[in-house]
Amino acid sequence: MTTTTPVWNPQRPSGMPYHRYRPFQERVHVPAGHRGWPSARIERAPLWVPVDLRDGNQALAEPMDTPRKRRFFDLLTAVGFKEIEVGYPSASRADFDFVRHLAGGGAVPDDVTPVVFTPARADLIDRTFDAIEGLPRAVVHLYIATSPVWREVVLGRSRAEVRRTVREAAEHMARRAGDAPGIRFQFSPETFNLTEPDFVLELCDGLTRLWDASPDRPVTHNLPATVEIATPNVYADQIEYVHRNLSRRDSVILSVHPHNDRGTGVACAELAVLAGAQRVEGCLFGNGERTGNVDLVTLALNLYAQGVDPMVDLGDLDAVRETVEHCNRLPVHPRHPYAGDLVYTAFSGTHQDAIGKGLARHARRAAELGVPESAAPWAVPYLPIDPADVGRSYEAVIRVNSQSGKGGVAYLLRTHHGIDLPPRMRPDFARVVQAATDDSGREATPKELYELFRATYLTEGAVRLHAWSAHEPSPGVHRFVCTLEAGDRVGDYEGTGAGVPTAFVDALAGAGVPVEVLDFTEDGTAAFAECRVGGVTAWGAGTGPSAAVHAVLSAVNRAVR
Amino acid sequence: MTTTTPVWNPQRPSGMPYHRYRPFQERVHVPAGHRGWPSARIERAPLWVPVDLRDGNQALAEPMDTPRKRRFFDLLTAVGFKEIEVGYPSASRADFDFVRHLAGGGAVPDDVTPVVFTPARADLIDRTFDAIEGLPRAVVHLYIATSPVWREVVLGRSRAEVRRTVREAAEHMARRAGDAPGIRFQFSPETFNLTEPDFVLELCDGLTRLWDASPDRPVTHNLPATVEIATPNVYADQIEYVHRNLSRRDSVILSVHPHNDRGTGVACAELAVLAGAQRVEGCLFGNGERTGNVDLVTLALNLYAQGVDPMVDLGDLDAVRETVEHCNRLPVHPRHPYAGDLVYTAFSGTHQDAIGKGLARHARRAAELGVPESAAPWAVPYLPIDPADVGRSYEAVIRVNSQSGKGGVAYLLRTHHGIDLPPRMRPDFARVVQAATDDSGREATPKELYELFRATYLTEGAVRLHAWSAHEPSPGVHRFVCTLEAGDRVGDYEGTGAGVPTAFVDALAGAGVPVEVLDFTEDGTAAFAECRVGGVTAWGAGTGPSAAVHAVLSAVNRAVR
Repeated sequence: MTTTTPVWNPQRPSGMPYHRYRPFQERVHVPAGHRGWPSARIERAPLWVPVDLRDGNQALAEPMDTPRKRRFFDLLTAVGFKEIEVGYPSASRADFDFVRHLAGGGAVPDDVTPVVFTPARADLIDRTFDAIEGLPRAVVHLYIATSPVWREVVLGRSRAEVRRTVREAAEHMARRAGDAPGIRFQFSPETFNLTEPDFVLELCDGLTRLWDASPDRPVTHNLPATVEIATPNVYADQIEYVHRNLSRRDSVILSVHPHNDRGTGVACAELAVLAGAQRVEGCLFGNGERTGNVDLVTLALNLYAQGVDPMVDLGDLDAVRETVEHCNRLPVHPRHPYAGDLVYTAFSGTHQDAIGKGLARHARRAAELGVPESAAPWAVPYLPIDPADVGRSYEAVIRVNSQSGKGGVAYLLRTHHGIDLPPRMRPDFARVVQAATDDSGREATPKELYELFRATYLTEGAVRLHAWSAHEPSPGVHRFVCTLEAGDRVGDYEGTGAGVPTAFVDALAGAGVPVEVLDFTEDGTAAFAECRVGGVTAWGAGTGPSAAVHAVLSAVNRAVR
Repeated sequence: MTTTTPVWNPQRPSGMPYHRYRPFQERVHVPAGHRGWPSARIERAPLWVPVDLRDGNQALAEPMDTPRKRRFFDLLTAVGFKEIEVGYPSASRADFDFVRHLAGGGAVPDDVTPVVFTPARADLIDRTFDAIEGLPRAVVHLYIATSPVWREVVLGRSRAEVRRTVREAAEHMARRAGDAPGIRFQFSPETFNLTEPDFVLELCDGLTRLWDASPDRPVTHNLPATVEIATPNVYADQIEYVHRNLSRRDSVILSVHPHNDRGTGVACAELAVLAGAQRVEGCLFGNGERTGNVDLVTLALNLYAQGVDPMVDLGDLDAVRETVEHCNRLPVHPRHPYAGDLVYTAFSGTHQDAIGKGLARHARRAAELGVPESAAPWAVPYLPIDPADVGRSYEAVIRVNSQSGKGGVAYLLRTHHGIDLPPRMRPDFARVVQAATDDSGREATPKELYELFRATYLTEGAVRLHAWSAHEPSPGVHRFVCTLEAGDRVGDYEGTGAGVPTAFVDALAGAGVPVEVLDFTEDGTAAFAECRVGGVTAWGAGTGPSAAVHAVLSAVNRAVR
């Protein structure tokens, strides 16, 4: 792979001390043609395991108390998560108490398994088992850091010592579990992505044997990107290597646990699933240490947008978000995928135009198929999913400011005020809106748009109708009688025509105001007319019972202004 | 690639209407062994092109006015960006005015090239060229949507019609540019990632020829993931296909423009660079339509963390963030990579312990190398980069709550109050802190920690020293005279010993309080003693001029409590 340096606008050295860092060198070597994941496809959801109550919680300035944890737990079960990490009972009394609270009964549905996290120390394992006493099902999750830097700096232990520590802890766990059928085991070589792959296999395979895992009672081996260290393809290669080389593969649930230090947690999880991972640990909206854990909501909805059942129900996404924000006391960013306030919103004219056309086509397609719009296949420009599928209205989809164009303006007038501008009139009103928003620098709300519409088209001008009446003396012949003020003259006039507007135009001609109607449309709400008066062309509009007459009058007044 | 379904805890169908969507089917077919990017490495920074003033701006509820745009532009040039998209002059007066402001002189450094964005329409191209009149250098950036859905729904044009529209627009651009040496051209097939690859090549190659691009005056072909539609490997394959099949490759700067609908914008950009892209368009901190454009700050610092010069100076990241937040009126999330408030912070005990050990090793390593800590190679657990490199202090790195342990508590007391607890005493105080934070559920600030320390060790107890003095009648022999209150008895006592503390212990024995000192350390700030009294062991501490005496007294009082 060679890339050439840009020859134009060369960038300059930053002066930052980048030489203090080095690239991750210990990549898995994959011979040409032996990499499976770049050609793979995700066809079903992996097992999602939220770790909000443990990994997420330990990253909060104010960790959750038991009521908040319970509220979060209930949300997770309601959404449909079936395996949930609930705490690190040996690390704090609050964590211990919450697991005891769950063991007290009532909170854990029959098809949900709690996971508890423990370090590799006999006394802390004992405390962990004390916490889950009474739970009919649980996964006990053993972790130890395994990479060279951690072994040396943090643990002060060699590979052999780490191996022995893990073995002793695992044996202790097996003893404590006894033959309880509801207890399973999980192992995380923390800092997996910095660990020698052969050492990972040695530890995992040793535990698969020691815990006597079988397809009916599999062990979970969970491979964390504890801190992201390289582009996501490097992690995918690491996962595929383990996937292909694990012993008793059918007795292992291969799990991943990505963090987000490089902003690539979602990609790492997805490429890992392509590479053979079957289970993904993460947090809702990506809470967690530092930059957070991978966001399970984004992962699930990414599958959804590709036609794969996410296996969790995020149909009321704002309610999910509200609970999570309450429990974590952290906001979800306005641009957060799927859930942010602004992510189904378009301000720019070209986007609005495309969305408007796409929504119209969607409605036609649903009608052709004879299904509700909410059931028709979705393909609307700029909107990866139908906002309605996650409980969002279309209200916020199109918002108008100086970056907007005729499509968005017309859309808002139609959906909020029932005023459906004819296509040829839209540029006229869009210019009015853009001048106003250019001046203010701010967004125009639908109400403000209507106010602009009113001030532009529905106000009086130089030509005024004082009293008037119209009747149809014979079918197809309309007669219009009025008192008209034009400039400083007031007089009575009358006219006839095939319709009321044309009869009115005839009366105007009599008053010395010759008008040519170039375009005219009317619906139940409003009428729109394009008129030429003395060489000047203008659009006008009218509403109410006499919309047609007022539309012509409005156009005339805008032309003679 | 086969993956087995988890046999334990099967998930259940969500009930969401996922069948409304379908997977992206039109992937580029890559024969086995022909994919280069998964084995590649990024060894130099691509050309970063911020589009904040155009794509970012058009996604804001309140677009920037000229002063805000100018402030943003000045930030971008100060940071070191050399090519900057400055607006869409034909779309709004505000955009036009800002480009005219830049053309007015003074703002654009000699080595910076502004880019302006235009649709494929002669009158709007004219307006664009009017805007840049007077700028010595500019890139005129032509876009048109090219994918089937957009062609059909939005443009209502066939492939041939799109091709003709592009050709006519490009010819008009070439005419308007004339032989001005400072004008270059850029082309974006918007919705590239949904477009037939052969059509992309046809359009791009046609423009390379039409504009007569050469290595000295290259054309930029920019390939947007306008809306993310698949896992990042799919985009990488698309980019590699174009990279390998473009004609006059050395006359083309291959550029990408990822969005972030699936939360994988950063990954898409990185994999695209691995696949041959030389230029990346994005926004600072990922502003932009909906979920935003790819974040250039994260991309640059991702390279930095791997020892590659980012070619932009983000050494004062908080100042960059402050300006961007001011201009966009949008916050940067607390967990945003590199820039969020919480991303260099650890609350959990194990993380704090590891960071503490890592920082200590870092200091030793710097000393061994004879360089300042800020220049020594960085390898501290859980911290991908030295926070100081982006202007962050270590203050926020370790924060203490109920999830924290002895390491973090000791770290904060030492760094904020100069009190260096001896390692054996740390668990004692950590228990005190954990009980307090478990009760409050909140974080303990360094000040609150000191207050807890004071309340625990530096307060009076049952045994009180009223008046006392110590002197050294002969070298190595200390004499301690005091009035002591123990329980309800007050009396005068004296004792001798090899040091003041032992002389005090001797006096205590005389008063009927037999004390065994198990551990004692003292530094310039404080003294710490572990004492056994009547079978009970406790730690104590003292500060000030008589720290040693007070440390023993404190331990005694905690033991007899």
